[in-house]
Amino acid sequence: MKTIGLITDFGNKDWYVAEMKLMIRSLCDVEIVDITHEIDEFDIDKAKFLLLQANRIMPEHSVTIAVIDPGVGSDRKSIVLRSGNKYFIGPNNGIFDYITDIKSECFQIKEETFSEVSNTFHGRDIFAPLASKIICGENTDKYITPCECRGKGMKNPTVKDNLIIGQVIYIDKFGNAITNIDHTYYEDIKRGNIIFGEEKIEFVNSYSESSGRSAIFNSSGFLEITSYKGEYSENLKIGEVVQIEVRRHM
Amino acid sequence: MKTIGLITDFGNKDWYVAEMKLMIRSLCDVEIVDITHEIDEFDIDKAKFLLLQANRIMPEHSVTIAVIDPGVGSDRKSIVLRSGNKYFIGPNNGIFDYITDIKSECFQIKEETFSEVSNTFHGRDIFAPLASKIICGENTDKYITPCECRGKGMKNPTVKDNLIIGQVIYIDKFGNAITNIDHTYYEDIKRGNIIFGEEKIEFVNSYSESSGRSAIFNSSGFLEITSYKGEYSENLKIGEVVQIEVRRHM
Amino acid sequence: MKTIGLITDFGNKDWYVAEMKLMIRSLCDVEIVDITHEIDEFDIDKAKFLLLQANRIMPEHSVTIAVIDPGVGSDRKSIVLRSGNKYFIGPNNGIFDYITDIKSECFQIKEETFSEVSNTFHGRDIFAPLASKIICGENTDKYITPCECRGKGMKNPTVKDNLIIGQVIYIDKFGNAITNIDHTYYEDIKRGNIIFGEEKIEFVNSYSESSGRSAIFNSSGFLEITSYKGEYSENLKIGEVVQIEVRRHM
Repeated sequence: MKTIGLITDFGNKDWYVAEMKLMIRSLCDVEIVDITHEIDEFDIDKAKFLLLQANRIMPEHSVTIAVIDPGVGSDRKSIVLRSGNKYFIGPNNGIFDYITDIKSECFQIKEETFSEVSNTFHGRDIFAPLASKIICGENTDKYITPCECRGKGMKNPTVKDNLIIGQVIYIDKFGNAITNIDHTYYEDIKRGNIIFGEEKIEFVNSYSESSGRSAIFNSSGFLEITSYKGEYSENLKIGEVVQIEVRRHM
Repeated sequence: MKTIGLITDFGNKDWYVAEMKLMIRSLCDVEIVDITHEIDEFDIDKAKFLLLQANRIMPEHSVTIAVIDPGVGSDRKSIVLRSGNKYFIGPNNGIFDYITDIKSECFQIKEETFSEVSNTFHGRDIFAPLASKIICGENTDKYITPCECRGKGMKNPTVKDNLIIGQVIYIDKFGNAITNIDHTYYEDIKRGNIIFGEEKIEFVNSYSESSGRSAIFNSSGFLEITSYKGEYSENLKIGEVVQIEVRRHM
Repeated sequence: MKTIGLITDFGNKDWYVAEMKLMIRSLCDVEIVDITHEIDEFDIDKAKFLLLQANRIMPEHSVTIAVIDPGVGSDRKSIVLRSGNKYFIGPNNGIFDYITDIKSECFQIKEETFSEVSNTFHGRDIFAPLASKIICGENTDKYITPCECRGKGMKNPTVKDNLIIGQVIYIDKFGNAITNIDHTYYEDIKRGNIIFGEEKIEFVNSYSESSGRSAIFNSSGFLEITSYKGEYSENLKIGEVVQIEVRRHM
């Protein structure tokens, strides 16, 4: 099934999401999946992580459009990023960082080849038509041209002596703080001391085991600092450090 | 048309809803209807009432998945509840209370028969695949086993002498407080005195008739305390008592 | 593709939207597009503008249902408005003002011809069934009867000497204040002085050019007062005046 995913900061109060969807549907018969439209205004950091999740959950041959675009109408460029058989379209403002790796292919969008382009809504005027062309198999050579991928990748945890030092990269609606420490560190974490801020916290296997702030591997494979029913979700911020004291040879 | 309904507390800020939907769509061609994803975190009481509504509004042969699941990954059990030809899937933590009656059939889910099950996201790993199997007509004997239905049913109003004593079981976004007093009490209520808290309130036939807090039979057949354009919606809470002084033989 | 659009103030916390959708789907195989369900409770002004946008973005032969309806169940009338080949259904309480012009055709809905109509949910009981009948090509003579269109139209800017005086008619989630001054005034505005409240503001071509509150033509063709990343979005209100000092012959 042809699928287009949408990640925007448009919210659900206005008509912008509907306008993009109706544009897509007018061009191509496709399933549209809302990933989210409730990214905080121009929150590039959240967008990065949501695109990482989109890359994991969207089906093969899908297209994901991401519109978190404070620079719309300026000379900022837009790109198509191809990761395996999945395509991602949006402004080249850092949102693609976490899905960029050495296998990614990037294409700059030739905005001038689209007709009737506003300075304020490229989601409707460029990204939606281009996504429709890609997913419905139209030749897109006219609209895009290969370019270098400039995404920085995701910052990996620092491993130093007996320390693994990661950081919070996303906070979800439950107040869970997701870190950049992935499942490859599972054994070290299980046996190590987990220090979050000043606090030593416990490693648990399910949310219900936690009786305060604790650490868990979440459903997308990252170490997550739980909020214990929201009680510990305040004052969390992206970038906050999580430190694991590994007891590898003890 | 095959239909799966979703009731969750996932919110619309993260990717969790999209991930469940994409899992379902990868397994079965089905219409997915969002009932709500904005239940307050782990609000079992709201979930109960929303499942009651789902039982009323979902079509025959549909499946509704409910994920309000603070105990995910613990030893709490999950069930399939069959009510007529409608199926409901979720954790057995009380959310099915109001749709349980003597005709309900229940089945415990054999979680161990699902592969790659996380401790944190059974909506994706168990409920979505099982719903897909049920709705696409796959034999599910392997995945579920009959069990006793333990739901408590909905608490009916107490009728005592000339009093009908009900309580608020749901508060909607308009601030209307829905009670457990249903349409079978219509005649008594129309002619009786309605006491809400300390206040005697008027019975009205439409929202526009009300010039303050009043009582109305709502579109799902329950007596509802209106909020008069939100003015009276504060301090309402689930469990609050509504008392009808019946004037049956006067 | 058959399309029904929905504009309501139901929010996404309750089951009301799902109930309307399931009613529609039970009657007609149609694509349903959520325009918004998050209009503030009974905000007729926002509804007017959203219907104007719906008229622009909805496809030919579509139906849009608008349920912002404080008077439901009273003697307020409901109408079908036909604008070109697009149909709009809802209460006749002013929400259709901006899509009413001399070409509009209006039809009063004969509510008594619908069966099982509640006093509280005409969206489900009347508008959804009628929309389904219209979009699936059923004869609707029985349900509606021609009537005069009473919508007031959109108030145009006042042009007086060297002044164009408009006003804010919508504020979007980014805090942008959209005015009733449309693209026909482009040349005057580009060369004139734009006064918003007490403040002279700059005209820009893209959001990223603005370094404070400024004015821009937005993606729907109206002059919009930008909020500069939300910083200037407070205290904005519908009805606020925007004044353009035109320098036509200077």
